[in-house]
Amino acid sequence: MPADALLFSNSRPPGAEVPFAHAAGPLRDHLGHRTVWFVGWARHDLDAYTGWVADALADVLGPVDLRGLHREPDPAATIREADPARETVLVGGGNTFRLRRRTGDNGVLAALRERDDLRYAGASAGSNLACPTIMTTNDMPIVDPGGLDALGRLPVQVNPHYLDPDPHSAHRGETREERIAEFHEENALAVVGLREGAWLFRSGDRLTLDGHTARLFRRGHEPTELAAGTDLSWLLETPTS
Amino acid sequence: MPADALLFSNSRPPGAEVPFAHAAGPLRDHLGHRTVWFVGWARHDLDAYTGWVADALADVLGPVDLRGLHREPDPAATIREADPARETVLVGGGNTFRLRRRTGDNGVLAALRERDDLRYAGASAGSNLACPTIMTTNDMPIVDPGGLDALGRLPVQVNPHYLDPDPHSAHRGETREERIAEFHEENALAVVGLREGAWLFRSGDRLTLDGHTARLFRRGHEPTELAAGTDLSWLLETPTS
Repeated sequence: MPADALLFSNSRPPGAEVPFAHAAGPLRDHLGHRTVWFVGWARHDLDAYTGWVADALADVLGPVDLRGLHREPDPAATIREADPARETVLVGGGNTFRLRRRTGDNGVLAALRERDDLRYAGASAGSNLACPTIMTTNDMPIVDPGGLDALGRLPVQVNPHYLDPDPHSAHRGETREERIAEFHEENALAVVGLREGAWLFRSGDRLTLDGHTARLFRRGHEPTELAAGTDLSWLLETPTS
Repeated sequence: MPADALLFSNSRPPGAEVPFAHAAGPLRDHLGHRTVWFVGWARHDLDAYTGWVADALADVLGPVDLRGLHREPDPAATIREADPARETVLVGGGNTFRLRRRTGDNGVLAALRERDDLRYAGASAGSNLACPTIMTTNDMPIVDPGGLDALGRLPVQVNPHYLDPDPHSAHRGETREERIAEFHEENALAVVGLREGAWLFRSGDRLTLDGHTARLFRRGHEPTELAAGTDLSWLLETPTS
């Protein structure tokens, strides 16, 4: 059984300027007093991104020992040698294809797979990376990801930033719901469309939605609405239906 | 010099129910009286898709000899043996990752690369496939595409269904412009964001925007607006700036 995972749609819901302010309690409980290794490879400017997140967490949670994993001489070794009682991982958002590629190339992805006893928190692209695959990202494939398989910290796909169709839009591209239906033409995994402000929390054999509503997509079923607080533990048992 | 290519943002601009009705003249000129091999692998139901497009073209252009390439015993051989004076290719929209994967697996992608003397028309995913890479698709990576490289019928990337930022949106995911800026963090190719109803036409050393406006993104430059009718031939000479 992997360690606890806290997966946010996004660090900043609409109207919120301070990242993670909407989820201070759950995030504080999850991180505890651990050193937080920040995995920022979804973005281009790693130092700037790490600094921004460190400042934000200090505002919301008080002092946090957050460190950019990219500054380590051997980032994969730092993960492989981490102590789960004292260290944890926070994976930031940005471009999921870049995150998959960079962490694949530098060995951090493989190290995180080995060390599923480390608690994991992710936002947006960081939540995509926790899933079996990154196939339900919304991002543009700006680099070859080197594979679409990911960490599988839960047997369910997350679609972050889930967007309802806009009946007034002149856009003729696919709606998000249509894109997820295309995913189910090719794949059987359930997809949780997390609206901004929502998160999933996996702890042992429990999976809970919180923070906001979500929409659940299962192959061969009509989509259903999920209220904040919904127990989704059954999805951990029936990953493909 | 590759043969003429006609690349649509989409077959149906807002308000138009009949595909290609907005572009009947250019499409008729481009297809001529050729047999049209329809490449529909971006979608799941190939027969239904082919029938829908055949009916639509008949409505708009009158009788057209459109045939589903997927019904051929050896689709790649059909392309390799095609006569450019009598046969042409139309690549439909859907999911770009699926289109890249299926045509990579069945050899049609390689055949189309060899046969760049065949006229090419594409819409949405079909336009993505004509570019150097599929990196500026908007689609979800529902299957491993088997590579992001594509046909390179022009040295410019198309972003179909280009969407301007919505100032009223509560969505906190990246805007399309932000996604293209991420592309330019990693790549140098110019990107033409084709709004619904717009198309690019490449003929020899000429490249023209028509049908609607577009937005041009070049690495290291501010984005610029392009009117319908703009001559973009200079982009064929300076592919990376």
